[in-house]
Amino acid sequence: MEATATSGLITTEIFEALQQIVGAQYILADQENLQHYGHDETEKLLYLPEVIVKPATTEEVAAIMRLCNLHLIPVTPRGAGTGLSGGALPHLGGVLLSTERLNKIIQIDERNLQVTTEPGVITEVLQDAVKAKGLFYPPDPSSKGSCFIGGNIAENSGGPKAVKYGVVKDYVLNLEVVLPTGDIIWTGANVLKNSTGYNLTQLMVGSEGTLGIVTKIVLKLIPLPKYDLLMLVPFVDLEKASEAVSAIFRAGFTPSALELIEIDALQIVAKMVDSHAVPVTPDIAAHLIIEVDGNNMDVLMSEMEQIAELMATYEGGEVFFADDAQQKAELWKLRRRAAEAVKSVGYTIEEDTVVPRAELPALIRGVKALGKQYNFHAVCYGHAGDGNLHVRIHKEGIPNSYGNEEMTHILRAMFDLVYSLGGTISGEHGIGLIQKKYMDIVFKEANLDIMRGIKKVFDPNNILNAGKIFDSK
Amino acid sequence: MEATATSGLITTEIFEALQQIVGAQYILADQENLQHYGHDETEKLLYLPEVIVKPATTEEVAAIMRLCNLHLIPVTPRGAGTGLSGGALPHLGGVLLSTERLNKIIQIDERNLQVTTEPGVITEVLQDAVKAKGLFYPPDPSSKGSCFIGGNIAENSGGPKAVKYGVVKDYVLNLEVVLPTGDIIWTGANVLKNSTGYNLTQLMVGSEGTLGIVTKIVLKLIPLPKYDLLMLVPFVDLEKASEAVSAIFRAGFTPSALELIEIDALQIVAKMVDSHAVPVTPDIAAHLIIEVDGNNMDVLMSEMEQIAELMATYEGGEVFFADDAQQKAELWKLRRRAAEAVKSVGYTIEEDTVVPRAELPALIRGVKALGKQYNFHAVCYGHAGDGNLHVRIHKEGIPNSYGNEEMTHILRAMFDLVYSLGGTISGEHGIGLIQKKYMDIVFKEANLDIMRGIKKVFDPNNILNAGKIFDSK
Repeated sequence: MEATATSGLITTEIFEALQQIVGAQYILADQENLQHYGHDETEKLLYLPEVIVKPATTEEVAAIMRLCNLHLIPVTPRGAGTGLSGGALPHLGGVLLSTERLNKIIQIDERNLQVTTEPGVITEVLQDAVKAKGLFYPPDPSSKGSCFIGGNIAENSGGPKAVKYGVVKDYVLNLEVVLPTGDIIWTGANVLKNSTGYNLTQLMVGSEGTLGIVTKIVLKLIPLPKYDLLMLVPFVDLEKASEAVSAIFRAGFTPSALELIEIDALQIVAKMVDSHAVPVTPDIAAHLIIEVDGNNMDVLMSEMEQIAELMATYEGGEVFFADDAQQKAELWKLRRRAAEAVKSVGYTIEEDTVVPRAELPALIRGVKALGKQYNFHAVCYGHAGDGNLHVRIHKEGIPNSYGNEEMTHILRAMFDLVYSLGGTISGEHGIGLIQKKYMDIVFKEANLDIMRGIKKVFDPNNILNAGKIFDSK
Repeated sequence: MEATATSGLITTEIFEALQQIVGAQYILADQENLQHYGHDETEKLLYLPEVIVKPATTEEVAAIMRLCNLHLIPVTPRGAGTGLSGGALPHLGGVLLSTERLNKIIQIDERNLQVTTEPGVITEVLQDAVKAKGLFYPPDPSSKGSCFIGGNIAENSGGPKAVKYGVVKDYVLNLEVVLPTGDIIWTGANVLKNSTGYNLTQLMVGSEGTLGIVTKIVLKLIPLPKYDLLMLVPFVDLEKASEAVSAIFRAGFTPSALELIEIDALQIVAKMVDSHAVPVTPDIAAHLIIEVDGNNMDVLMSEMEQIAELMATYEGGEVFFADDAQQKAELWKLRRRAAEAVKSVGYTIEEDTVVPRAELPALIRGVKALGKQYNFHAVCYGHAGDGNLHVRIHKEGIPNSYGNEEMTHILRAMFDLVYSLGGTISGEHGIGLIQKKYMDIVFKEANLDIMRGIKKVFDPNNILNAGKIFDSK
């Protein structure tokens, strides 16, 4: 799907004013760049902006917002463009504001276990920088090698470590934000506890670039655990695998990762990355990837043994322990590249379902039943320990759910199921453009009216990432 | 029953309508009750409501709000009245809405490690109920034996365990809320990860009863750690004690509690509860209370020994280990009752300062200097591991800061100091009535305008706990 930038809002005067702000080389409007910045990782969608602007400072961002607010020009903020819900798609044309030049780690505060960073830093770069000081920033989306920390804030990202360490929102202490009007605020303070007025920090986290543009981020860090152990457990029965997930927590364990991957996904990704690390036998339905971490190796070994024994009672097969750093890396690569791999073979539609952990078997059963009913293929993988299951869908001739009536009907059935299990429609990808039409399943109109009201408080002219999360009234 | 009408808004018709909603025995207006519900634990302040209403269901709360919204009657929600910032003070008269009859624990979900509760349950009762199932709800304000979980949500309470386990906001998954208009919403879903629209759950937490009345609460639980160890370390130098706090984290330890208590406070509370558990010698300036918890006793013993050794390098004195449950309880009683004790001897004004952890020595030094400059006594205690220091102030002839010009001047100087250290004015008590005049120190007018705008979205007629956190414009 392609919408071209014919809104014609960027007059010569405005183009020149933008050039004045960021410098001529940091405003782009050539076809190649318009194409590049016109898509993210969401389905097969493409919307061209009119111009791409790359500010390097908070003040430049503020000047852009003041200009666009005055002239009512739509602005779409964008990090690395790895999003899966279309949050960074410039579907209204106008200005695409890229944060890629806001890419400095400003300070690692070892005294207070905090880091202050700009939003355009790659998540893994940030993690490695604090790791070098013996510190740990846990949230690790699958795309950590390419996504930006700013985008992680926008979507309240998770990743495998969330099951023990929480998601992005649990680490954000304070944010510098340029409001749609161009005003600059800090949302909180660089402290571990804060009961000082409404929590604007948490309101910004997960607001998908609709309330303001985050220009500085203060994150809490924790001491880096010394050791981790990783194992892979095969199951012949998918439901048994998902039942085993819940049993681990009920037995008192808190793994640092607890992932589920269906055999179809594992086969596809193993082929793509040419890996033979995992013996993939045809009788296996799914694997659990289980990691524990901590500072005492004996304790971890004992935990791992106990968990392995517990898995056997759920018909878990022969356990594969990752022996060294290389084997661990290989195993994680298989999990992390699953989305990319299955997308490349036609599973272009990804849903980010989340349910209470113990409802995972019912969710998987329901998804498979819907697949039979509506004639689509679904492969499941994800953060089973959090009840957060990614469902990748392939239905012949339908590459996008967005704008497709038949797939919309199917997905409404899926989200009805999710809601009936006590869950909701996004665990970590956000609503963005493509999920907004399902918000009525999980929220009353009163909720959506409150969200619209909040949007208006921040953005009276509805210029910043408008039409994401919900439609304005 | 004696009905008084200070602001005269509760006409006979409205009184009868309220009776219709909750039943005649659950609406009170006699002097004794008006006095009781006219104060909380904040300084020596008293404001009488016109009537006290005690609904028992969400629907009754909604009916009360619809009535009051129609007739523009101020409503002040109240939990157990243990607040320290005046959030529950009915300073505008009108209706005092007590949640004490919303006191059921609805469900402990052992499959998903969650509890659903009404707001009028005493925090410790809730903790004990989940503990009986081997589960753990960590946030434990000093008042846990009397405060309500609903009030904890309103203020985003903390307590000693916050240093390892986080504060209330880190455990709230979903809230049923009656809006000021009488509409009923759920803010989220009962899931561990959620990126579905603006985080209304986190917006409610810490909003001090100004945005809605929480009627049901879904909390995340974790497995209960099997063991804990507790020790008390004396210091002859207050600043050394606070420096030692930061050193513990930098050495890679995360204690489950790390409290500081100045010797004056310890002496006063030991006398009040007639305890001789701790040898209080005159050369000691302060103690650190250090707790570790986990599932492996050998690991904990080793941690405790290493921490004790580290304390010696900061001139820590002879360590007192709590040998058994009784000694632990005795030690915690001394800490938990410190506020009550020092208040009873004239330290009626309590400030809830919070700074980045490593700035604690500078904060204590600054507070003491201000005491000399402005001629007041201050005793300090609190959650040092979080940089959250309670400062109790005694100045002859000034029982309240609220409404006192001289004390307001002093406190502005103190909060200027806090802000200059990167901190803010409340870590866990909230802003309520008495701190709102200091909000300009830590926030721009743009922040406060956003908060006012959000308030208006939820409460267009400004009837619910109006005049708390900020004044309307």
